[in-house]
Amino acid sequence: MSGGAGTRLWPASRQAAPKQLLPLVSEQTMIQETAERLRGQWQGFEFSAPVIVCNTTHASPIAEQLGALGIKPGTIITEPIARNTAPCAAIAALAVRDQDPDALMLLAPADHHISDKAAFARVVSDGLEAAAAGYLVTFGITAQTPETGYGYIQKGESLDAHAFKVAAFKEKPQKQTAETYIASGQYFWNAGIFMCKPSVLLAEMQRHCADILTACEKTYQASHKHNGLLSLDKQTFAACPADSIDYAVMEPTEKAAVVEANMGWSDIGSWSALWELTKGDDTNATRGDVHTIDTKNSLIHTDAPFVATIGVENLAIVAHQGTVLVAKMDKVQDVKKVVEFLKKRGGNGEL
Amino acid sequence: MSGGAGTRLWPASRQAAPKQLLPLVSEQTMIQETAERLRGQWQGFEFSAPVIVCNTTHASPIAEQLGALGIKPGTIITEPIARNTAPCAAIAALAVRDQDPDALMLLAPADHHISDKAAFARVVSDGLEAAAAGYLVTFGITAQTPETGYGYIQKGESLDAHAFKVAAFKEKPQKQTAETYIASGQYFWNAGIFMCKPSVLLAEMQRHCADILTACEKTYQASHKHNGLLSLDKQTFAACPADSIDYAVMEPTEKAAVVEANMGWSDIGSWSALWELTKGDDTNATRGDVHTIDTKNSLIHTDAPFVATIGVENLAIVAHQGTVLVAKMDKVQDVKKVVEFLKKRGGNGEL
Repeated sequence: MSGGAGTRLWPASRQAAPKQLLPLVSEQTMIQETAERLRGQWQGFEFSAPVIVCNTTHASPIAEQLGALGIKPGTIITEPIARNTAPCAAIAALAVRDQDPDALMLLAPADHHISDKAAFARVVSDGLEAAAAGYLVTFGITAQTPETGYGYIQKGESLDAHAFKVAAFKEKPQKQTAETYIASGQYFWNAGIFMCKPSVLLAEMQRHCADILTACEKTYQASHKHNGLLSLDKQTFAACPADSIDYAVMEPTEKAAVVEANMGWSDIGSWSALWELTKGDDTNATRGDVHTIDTKNSLIHTDAPFVATIGVENLAIVAHQGTVLVAKMDKVQDVKKVVEFLKKRGGNGEL
Repeated sequence: MSGGAGTRLWPASRQAAPKQLLPLVSEQTMIQETAERLRGQWQGFEFSAPVIVCNTTHASPIAEQLGALGIKPGTIITEPIARNTAPCAAIAALAVRDQDPDALMLLAPADHHISDKAAFARVVSDGLEAAAAGYLVTFGITAQTPETGYGYIQKGESLDAHAFKVAAFKEKPQKQTAETYIASGQYFWNAGIFMCKPSVLLAEMQRHCADILTACEKTYQASHKHNGLLSLDKQTFAACPADSIDYAVMEPTEKAAVVEANMGWSDIGSWSALWELTKGDDTNATRGDVHTIDTKNSLIHTDAPFVATIGVENLAIVAHQGTVLVAKMDKVQDVKKVVEFLKKRGGNGEL
């Protein structure tokens, strides 16, 4: 799932090259990291060639980036317009079912970082039994701190050695509520990674969001596949309601299961999250041509300009594509205000 | 005198376009502001067309910038190599003497800001009598705060209604010393602005720095003037010792006089000085395409990139010519360390 705009990482993440197409944590781009993670043979299963769902304008750079790793996608499905994750999942399920009716489908965002690749494979293995048994498996991240920026998953009764029924999905909580979640030991962070039989997902969508499924089936029929590229028909896809897979299916379904995932996961939801993840011994996280003097606890990324810092701390400084952001680290969520300002002012060159 | 490199205002000020060629305080460049100040008819005197001394590479942009104001320099003297202010003053004196043996010469740096143009003309007028009487007049800035970044001039006995003999020049003092200077009322800041008869300056140079004068006379003879442009001969000028007019002449001479100048002077010796001078009601000083959110007491200059700031204060942020500086306001003097770093690393593209 490579449909995100990643505006929280503006000005590095732009329409033309959103977060998943950028190298942020390592020398690989996020989608390269993701594709590397989703390949190979593991205990009890083997990854097939990935199916990519992305914006039309990103098909070509994604094919290039994966090609550089020797990865050839099974299909690249291009969205002419963004419709959130439920339609994405539905179309992917239709495509996977056509390709291999017996396959399980793992739905993963293309812009997440997972530091422990082997743990990820173990966690997928842990979910196989429940997915094969007809559950929509979601992977719940071991919650160690009372984060207020994530949704939570409450586990219910045990299904097998690894999976639990989902008792409830919880919206992003207040700090105090998050603390009770952590204390109880019954909650995971919702990372938006899912595994299921395509047929089960499609049946549950028929039950809980038939309008989306119908629109997606129409779109799938109206779209043309050529050379591994499935370009979604714009008119029919535009008519599809936009919704997340969580709201449209996972919350209403009786078939939601959760498997704990302790694998060094981060959705890199902000510059401060990226700083936490990549800071060095000098407490700074730098990328590109950067020279720091008396600088602490700062992230400094540049795609070209030489950046010098003197006597600063707790800053996120990003010089990308002819634009510069300088933000206090604990205010980086306000980049959305800058993005809004730029949208309002028009001449979207900066976005 | 337009020979300065202005490295304290890096990265805006560069070899190719140093401080005096940049618009920093107003929409005019510093040398445009200076040339505007040094024109017209005032009580008791009239400015002649200016003689410019500058680096060879700056002759053409300076001629353009002054041309835009309808100012045609009397002569542009180009230095193929920097030799500090004493040789600059000597060569200028030779040129002015050739042009008009009776003229007084006002020596002024091209990169200073003076907010009160009429006061400046009054101050020049105040110095005429002493200069005509054969003194080397320096203009002492009314010192209101115990600055440690300037040299000081101690006034001695009174010479006329406005001028005093110079009792002593003082190096940049420690804070405590500066405070005693201010308390005494006997000290001015040394702004490096001078007025004299060319013949007196040349005679005093003969007495106190004959080596410089001799080298400058040789250079002047060996140089060719064409179309108002005097290109100094590189070989002879390179052989001239480099020294400041203060050290070489003003300190040793018996003929130094000082006239008080209360005219809103600033040498814009740092980004923080420029911020003090230009900050608006919102406490920020911005230039170019800047959008601030929750930002205080900061200077933000950009020559092209869109710059957004969020939740920061007391910063100097300068995005110029493909380079970005982010410095704590009270550490901006350390830009010299960055300039040194860039020199050492080579590939002087950034300088």
